[in-house]
Amino acid sequence: MKKAIELAKKGEFTTAPNPNVGCIIVNNNEIVGQGWHCQTGKEHAEIIALNMAGSKAIGSTMYVTLEPCSNFGHTPPCFNIIKKSGITKIVIATQDPNPLNSGKSISFLANSNIQVKINILANESKKINKGFFKRMETGLPFVQLKLGASIDGRTATVHGHSKWITSIQSRKDVQYYRAKSSAILSSSNTILNDNPYLTVRLEEIDKTVMLQKEIKNTFKQPIRIIIDSQNKIKNNYNCINQQGNVFLIRTKKDCHKWPANVQQIIVKATNKKIDLKNLFLLLGTYQINNIWVEAGPTLSGLLIEKKIIDELIIYISPKILGHTSKPLFIIEKTLKLPPNFIKLSFTDVRKIGPDIRITIKPIYL
Amino acid sequence: MKKAIELAKKGEFTTAPNPNVGCIIVNNNEIVGQGWHCQTGKEHAEIIALNMAGSKAIGSTMYVTLEPCSNFGHTPPCFNIIKKSGITKIVIATQDPNPLNSGKSISFLANSNIQVKINILANESKKINKGFFKRMETGLPFVQLKLGASIDGRTATVHGHSKWITSIQSRKDVQYYRAKSSAILSSSNTILNDNPYLTVRLEEIDKTVMLQKEIKNTFKQPIRIIIDSQNKIKNNYNCINQQGNVFLIRTKKDCHKWPANVQQIIVKATNKKIDLKNLFLLLGTYQINNIWVEAGPTLSGLLIEKKIIDELIIYISPKILGHTSKPLFIIEKTLKLPPNFIKLSFTDVRKIGPDIRITIKPIYL
Repeated sequence: MKKAIELAKKGEFTTAPNPNVGCIIVNNNEIVGQGWHCQTGKEHAEIIALNMAGSKAIGSTMYVTLEPCSNFGHTPPCFNIIKKSGITKIVIATQDPNPLNSGKSISFLANSNIQVKINILANESKKINKGFFKRMETGLPFVQLKLGASIDGRTATVHGHSKWITSIQSRKDVQYYRAKSSAILSSSNTILNDNPYLTVRLEEIDKTVMLQKEIKNTFKQPIRIIIDSQNKIKNNYNCINQQGNVFLIRTKKDCHKWPANVQQIIVKATNKKIDLKNLFLLLGTYQINNIWVEAGPTLSGLLIEKKIIDELIIYISPKILGHTSKPLFIIEKTLKLPPNFIKLSFTDVRKIGPDIRITIKPIYL
Repeated sequence: MKKAIELAKKGEFTTAPNPNVGCIIVNNNEIVGQGWHCQTGKEHAEIIALNMAGSKAIGSTMYVTLEPCSNFGHTPPCFNIIKKSGITKIVIATQDPNPLNSGKSISFLANSNIQVKINILANESKKINKGFFKRMETGLPFVQLKLGASIDGRTATVHGHSKWITSIQSRKDVQYYRAKSSAILSSSNTILNDNPYLTVRLEEIDKTVMLQKEIKNTFKQPIRIIIDSQNKIKNNYNCINQQGNVFLIRTKKDCHKWPANVQQIIVKATNKKIDLKNLFLLLGTYQINNIWVEAGPTLSGLLIEKKIIDELIIYISPKILGHTSKPLFIIEKTLKLPPNFIKLSFTDVRKIGPDIRITIKPIYL
């Protein structure tokens, strides 16, 4: 199963909105077939592995990192093909979290005289599909908030200089996270201040990974989502004129002629402010599994207050900017007095070039 | 020499103002003597090792982590005793940094037909005596600044609550640093706000280390140094009525009747502000090797601006306090625009209980 999970990871840049799945077929202690899912519409991991195994599938054991599909999507359901393949045992890391399918294939296969074993390295399989699992279970995407700060928790100087607070190594590391996300979300303020591209620069990501033919050919730029409640974004900004789709999140449409990749998405507002929880539920309906947020202190603070962030990733640069510089979070309400209404825990800390990257999991109380 | 350095470290809580020194005597590949310096006035490492070796010192090699002393202090100079001991070779990690003595013993021993080898693990020996080396070379103590902060770089809530931002594990870790310091420095503001004891709670330090008989019997509370330019401190504060000396740093004496452990030290002031660089030079003349600073954002900012800090130790707690909370550094002048006039680098990062401790070395440009 460990090997199957390693295989599944190969799809981390390309399978969305589908999950990463890996599959190994073992006959007489010999691997006779293996496969991983690469992209929506392409063959599922189980089918690739069965095709490779051919007649050696008969009497073998299949290890697969997620319950095989039981529905007709882009491809026919796997469970029928597995049943017919002649395998006699299937080991499944974890059930499909989709409430419509969960457990269906498992019962079907068990009723087809195939020995079924489940919950083997279930957490590891969930870990590589955090976004898929969260969306299936809650309708919401898995949301990561990226911040870059000085050691005194400042994101920009008093004059707004922020672009180069963190190192080139950290900026490369960010490319890797962006590439794994279905969407990159920011605010119109950030676009107006920094005019970022918000794209993945593939050439900056570890070559051994990204130059694999399958990934290079199938990689799509994440959707760029800009919260723009006051219709400030025009089509001359860098983030508009790039490959990949752009969602402008607004409370009413404007009548500009936008390029074909740009879509205005209209959401509810209360007191001219966009209802963030509703927005993220809406983004879930667009089959967005993972959202990578790069925003300023106001939106970052709001997303924390609204309990939308699943993971914080902070790059700390060895600089001091002082008390007049821009803060990491603007938080209006209830955080001021301990005890906090969120409990945070550090899940990872490591050096990235001259910087430190800390990963933080919030638990909302 | 590695073993000699390990021995030397045993004195880290007790030798100040003397350096940590370890010594091993080897005869025919057998350790015949070893020793470490424990406290001013007690025998030096070399003498303990020679006493243990007895006649086996004849024809042996001595490994010692610092150039043996050549002056009459509390004890007679070691170099004469070494010469008479019959050892034929001496390996010295590094020269004595004291300009009055540096190289003296080395020439004396070399002229006494003892083979002398120097600069073996010199950096390791300097590392365990940072304060001693810095004071000998510059007249200034080695100064560590301790800070506790939330992930957004805040030291206290808007209401001034700061005491429990970091965890019990971090506070224990602080005890260890305090214990290794000759002095703990703070400001009258911190005393007035938090009324801390600023003592070492020996029982909180790793028992295997602190319960060693030598340490328990010889340990002295670090001097508590309070910068109190406006004579705000009275004798009812916790830091006054504890074991160990207190220095009140003032611009003029008051006429209170202070307990015997309290000393008012008068320093120059410009525009009613104490000249910090001069203060630290003065503290050097009191034979203070290491100062551990625990202060608020104003003094912390000033010490950075004045280039006095040699090492920053920040405990980051997994909390968010928001933009209205107290900052880590109040910095008035020149730090606002990049490039910074100080270059910082992370020298260590690790988890301490639920917190992260980062160690930062500033290089002043």
